[in-house]
Amino acid sequence: MQFDPKTENYGNKVAESFKKQAFMKTLGAKLVEVRPGFCEIHVPFSKALTQQNGYFHAGVIATIADNTAGYAAFSLMEAHSDILTVEFKLNFLSPGKGEMLIGRGEVIKSGKTLTICRSELYVKQGEEEKLCAAGQSTLIQIRNST
Amino acid sequence: MQFDPKTENYGNKVAESFKKQAFMKTLGAKLVEVRPGFCEIHVPFSKALTQQNGYFHAGVIATIADNTAGYAAFSLMEAHSDILTVEFKLNFLSPGKGEMLIGRGEVIKSGKTLTICRSELYVKQGEEEKLCAAGQSTLIQIRNST
Amino acid sequence: MQFDPKTENYGNKVAESFKKQAFMKTLGAKLVEVRPGFCEIHVPFSKALTQQNGYFHAGVIATIADNTAGYAAFSLMEAHSDILTVEFKLNFLSPGKGEMLIGRGEVIKSGKTLTICRSELYVKQGEEEKLCAAGQSTLIQIRNST
Amino acid sequence: MQFDPKTENYGNKVAESFKKQAFMKTLGAKLVEVRPGFCEIHVPFSKALTQQNGYFHAGVIATIADNTAGYAAFSLMEAHSDILTVEFKLNFLSPGKGEMLIGRGEVIKSGKTLTICRSELYVKQGEEEKLCAAGQSTLIQIRNST
Repeated sequence: MQFDPKTENYGNKVAESFKKQAFMKTLGAKLVEVRPGFCEIHVPFSKALTQQNGYFHAGVIATIADNTAGYAAFSLMEAHSDILTVEFKLNFLSPGKGEMLIGRGEVIKSGKTLTICRSELYVKQGEEEKLCAAGQSTLIQIRNST
Repeated sequence: MQFDPKTENYGNKVAESFKKQAFMKTLGAKLVEVRPGFCEIHVPFSKALTQQNGYFHAGVIATIADNTAGYAAFSLMEAHSDILTVEFKLNFLSPGKGEMLIGRGEVIKSGKTLTICRSELYVKQGEEEKLCAAGQSTLIQIRNST
Repeated sequence: MQFDPKTENYGNKVAESFKKQAFMKTLGAKLVEVRPGFCEIHVPFSKALTQQNGYFHAGVIATIADNTAGYAAFSLMEAHSDILTVEFKLNFLSPGKGEMLIGRGEVIKSGKTLTICRSELYVKQGEEEKLCAAGQSTLIQIRNST
Repeated sequence: MQFDPKTENYGNKVAESFKKQAFMKTLGAKLVEVRPGFCEIHVPFSKALTQQNGYFHAGVIATIADNTAGYAAFSLMEAHSDILTVEFKLNFLSPGKGEMLIGRGEVIKSGKTLTICRSELYVKQGEEEKLCAAGQSTLIQIRNST
């Protein structure tokens, strides 16, 4: 889908918020691409992010599902606004086994108050990307007073 | 609800799996209680776990929602089995602002193949616990060949 | 949980909305109880409501999950307001086999804009009630201009 | 996505199950198309299916979301099998206002035991189709003993 951002500054807005999230640094996550209604984040594999079998922990995958959906939504929100996740749902489709976790979130409905997104998570092994999780999220715009 | 574990060793099974999850160490998470069909995990606040406003990141909350549900389910599974999260859904009810994140997961239906759980997440500030998220999960038992 | 309704008229408000839903008549559904933050609806079994094995169709169960959550939320909303379901998630725990489908919805978080509810669905056979589905919903208050 | 059905008879299998669901007749629902991993169902508008504002009831939309996902999944399952919905999640994006409700479900992951689907629901008004709901479902194959 094609969306018009409400501010030309949408890319900076997302990048600044991402930078303030210390947890992204903890995960080693990189903000790779932001377009109106779309966001892509990468997380290189690290032992510190694993579950009992040595794969990406479902919590890491869920974090990136949430953040790609959230920033896809945030890219369409007003200049002076903040964003909160209302809820999300995530299905795990195959083990999170790979050298890189790639998350892509996109807006499917941009409303006045609420935005609905889908996110897809891939694990990259060599040149192959495999879908490992797919989710759907509801986000709400918070109008800042300043 | 009351459940009978299929192995007396259920507590060790959960503790061993938890210990193998390097991501739990990264979060500073502690396995606090395991009963048949129930699990409680605590995460002390740390700057490394925050989102843009300095609160617990939704991804940390989702990780603990997933793990408390997962280990509540795992406590009822067979001795030689592994567990995977099929999917979960999580609503965020209030900001994750507190000194400690407390997750409690419990089984609401224990089936042959699938187990359904609910999890509740609280942030503790002083003596007060506030509900910050509530979720519902589907887990699947994987029978090990050994 | 205990909630204070914003209007004493909350019971009538719910009953009037229910009555306007022609689909409730199609299902033979009865509004059995409304309290602040709670709603119970019953649907007697009928062949017209069945899936391929002759049990209550998942869609009937989902409808009652949605409506009990919705009216539990609506009972706490302002006098001049309408309500919409933002989203819901529902797990099916056992077959919908019984003489009566009983839905109970309750609010777990009542916010300014959004309300979060849980709903539980039971099938009654003789004197026994069996949990057949459990869900979680997000509802939004729409302020009427009149 | 492209999928290979496990039986050439997949279309009949779906059509027969659909025919046995008395609730589909109650809704006036028509099975319009079945391909491997895909299903489309239409429901013409009728007063009997409405909510308080005279639009398609969320429960009708949820029923078709569930059934299109279910039959998309069922089209890929073995000849002698039955299917159950494990759970689904549905976001409502705009009012169900139109002359026809159109549901399209498709498989995004076909596993040995579990199948994951997405469904999209449209309301048709004149020549225009508008997305009114989007969901994600988990289905399980039940092996029949006969």
